[in-house]
Amino acid sequence: MARPMTMAEKILAAHAGLDEVVPGQLVECDLDLVLANDITAPIAIKTVREIGAGVFDRDRICLVPDHYSPNKDIKSAEQTKVTRDFAHEMGITHYFEQGCMGIEHALLPERGIVGPGDLVIGADSHTCTYGGIGAFSTGVGSTDAGVGMATGRAWFKVPETIRFEIDGKLPAGACAKDIILYVIGKIGVDGALYRAMEFAGSTIRDLSVEGRLTIANMAIEAGGKAGLFEVDDTARAWLAGRTERPYTECHPDPDATYLKVIKIDAADIVPQVSWPHLPSNTHSVAESRDITIDQAVIGSCTNGRIEDMRAAAEVLRGRTVNPNVRCIVIPATQAVWLQCVHEGLMDVFIDAHCVVSTPTCGPCLGGYMGILAAGERCVSSTNRNFVGRMGDPTSEVYLASPAVCAASAVAGHIALPSDL
Amino acid sequence: MARPMTMAEKILAAHAGLDEVVPGQLVECDLDLVLANDITAPIAIKTVREIGAGVFDRDRICLVPDHYSPNKDIKSAEQTKVTRDFAHEMGITHYFEQGCMGIEHALLPERGIVGPGDLVIGADSHTCTYGGIGAFSTGVGSTDAGVGMATGRAWFKVPETIRFEIDGKLPAGACAKDIILYVIGKIGVDGALYRAMEFAGSTIRDLSVEGRLTIANMAIEAGGKAGLFEVDDTARAWLAGRTERPYTECHPDPDATYLKVIKIDAADIVPQVSWPHLPSNTHSVAESRDITIDQAVIGSCTNGRIEDMRAAAEVLRGRTVNPNVRCIVIPATQAVWLQCVHEGLMDVFIDAHCVVSTPTCGPCLGGYMGILAAGERCVSSTNRNFVGRMGDPTSEVYLASPAVCAASAVAGHIALPSDL
Repeated sequence: MARPMTMAEKILAAHAGLDEVVPGQLVECDLDLVLANDITAPIAIKTVREIGAGVFDRDRICLVPDHYSPNKDIKSAEQTKVTRDFAHEMGITHYFEQGCMGIEHALLPERGIVGPGDLVIGADSHTCTYGGIGAFSTGVGSTDAGVGMATGRAWFKVPETIRFEIDGKLPAGACAKDIILYVIGKIGVDGALYRAMEFAGSTIRDLSVEGRLTIANMAIEAGGKAGLFEVDDTARAWLAGRTERPYTECHPDPDATYLKVIKIDAADIVPQVSWPHLPSNTHSVAESRDITIDQAVIGSCTNGRIEDMRAAAEVLRGRTVNPNVRCIVIPATQAVWLQCVHEGLMDVFIDAHCVVSTPTCGPCLGGYMGILAAGERCVSSTNRNFVGRMGDPTSEVYLASPAVCAASAVAGHIALPSDL
Repeated sequence: MARPMTMAEKILAAHAGLDEVVPGQLVECDLDLVLANDITAPIAIKTVREIGAGVFDRDRICLVPDHYSPNKDIKSAEQTKVTRDFAHEMGITHYFEQGCMGIEHALLPERGIVGPGDLVIGADSHTCTYGGIGAFSTGVGSTDAGVGMATGRAWFKVPETIRFEIDGKLPAGACAKDIILYVIGKIGVDGALYRAMEFAGSTIRDLSVEGRLTIANMAIEAGGKAGLFEVDDTARAWLAGRTERPYTECHPDPDATYLKVIKIDAADIVPQVSWPHLPSNTHSVAESRDITIDQAVIGSCTNGRIEDMRAAAEVLRGRTVNPNVRCIVIPATQAVWLQCVHEGLMDVFIDAHCVVSTPTCGPCLGGYMGILAAGERCVSSTNRNFVGRMGDPTSEVYLASPAVCAASAVAGHIALPSDL
């Protein structure tokens, strides 16, 4: 009988063809999916061409030109062209053209291209998002992704697992984004370095799948190799009719060994703001109200799903953005964008004087669609607030939930919806 | 009694405080409005600051950051910041923040900031658009615009006028865009150099105001100083409740002197395509069907109004964009954007796999939101197809109407809606 294992250990063992694995063990695994975007795909493709044997499975590679497209400039146009030409040449099933796409980490779960129990690598650090539906997914370098595309295999050092048990009811106004910012604030940006983060407890069980994806998305901001959530009825309902392949639910053994178990009382998680220049530099909104802002960004792979759009619209309805603020709303995928149309959210955004962008990573990584000038400040539902992340090196990014971003856009300073 | 005058002469005389003017005469005029955008305003503002007396009238200056905003990069962020800071400092009434704006030449008529009989200069070559509602408006250098902002005055050499009399019914599938492409094809890109173009005839009278704005917009592509349309009942109905100031209708005297009168039979104006690299390089769609495309752009100050969106949607409804094409739809203003939501056009665009952008000049001038890679071809409802205009110097732009752009997006090559 195999040793008791955590979720991460079970998924890696299954894909290595082993009955059991132990932390620290090097394993070579079969991959369910390899992902790259318009920045990383050209490098991965170069590797595939060097290996010279094509791709391992045209149905198991996903290429999403979401970072600088619709093409920002000639350079990005060339990058997406390399990606597109390769996709057409190889007959890649999951190539998403501009107009059919969205931000990769929102798109893949939405379209059912990833599922529970999958092992996924992606040449993008936020590939860890799919842990929200019980996949072991992790960001790798573009060359590693290229090898994965060519061979369908990758090696891993089995990570230790830290379990986060979060119980109780969140305070008013707090949401999944606040949970992960709180966790990162508690353990630091290297608090889970090369470890799997397993999330459990009644607070987690009460979250929507969208909220779980938000948390898993930011596992990397604590250094995590992956962030994992068990499949439950909420997840099953969300996955129904969505996943394109049969999936395997993977649950941790009750007596699995964890590096540590961190227990958190949800009542402590008031709405959070991560001040510059680290996601771990968390403060309450109460401590942040004096911070005036020039821009608010609501979107990204972290918080661009329909639940996020609804949360922002609820705050913006009947209000207008402060004249000193640009508020940029970016639904994460074409499907979310259209759902915003159907639910009347677009009316709310436009009436409130928001910019509504086509789905793109855009400003999150300083790409386009809202770059900051010197000294400007942005409150953002994105995932990183490093120096110069969204523009000039002297600009500042404050991370918060969509609701706090929306409220701040109206107030002109960092604020709660209840402040308005 | 004054000599008989053309529309252009009458408006210049009125603003120079003279009973009459003659072509070639230098006149100094009072300005009704001075316009600049995020590219040109910083230069104009520098001039205003050098003059040192502030602006002549904070209600008569219009600043629209439409070219590279939401900020494409740090440089454009700094440019919009200069513009914004100046607008706030001077209390400029018609400063349009991101989220409240649109492409300047669509926005100003829509909001009633320009009206018939106005004399307008703008630091943008397509300022001539407002001739569509009977204003004399023209593009100037940024420094001239700065002097205009400071003094409210500018000098002009009174242009000769060419009158275009277009009569009869347009062939099936032809529209206002085809008229102006046909005219430019006929007279060349310098065919109206420093001349006013006066448009008349039954075909013109049958056009919507949107169509007239499209034609006036491209007067500059024939070298025109302005393109002018008389106010009629169609225009009066469009202007009702829209213009913020009383306006003066200006009609040419029947015995006015024209440099020449060019008579055109509308039946000759089949749907046009301007091949690279000049707007005057016009061909019929029939001659263009072998040209495959990589991208279609539907929008711009030329063709981004609601009528254009409807024309594109009519073609795209129930169809999907060819998988080898990116189709980028850019409603010209927030109001047009929202009207697309209300009329169900957004459903059509997204279902057809179009990118829908926030209002911006974007790709038209190679800004962002659809830049072309080497060798790529785009069919576009914009106004210029110069070498490298939309990206790489080896890329190509073909100018056409929104309906032809939409049909081409579906076909994958230049096509008429009736070809689908």
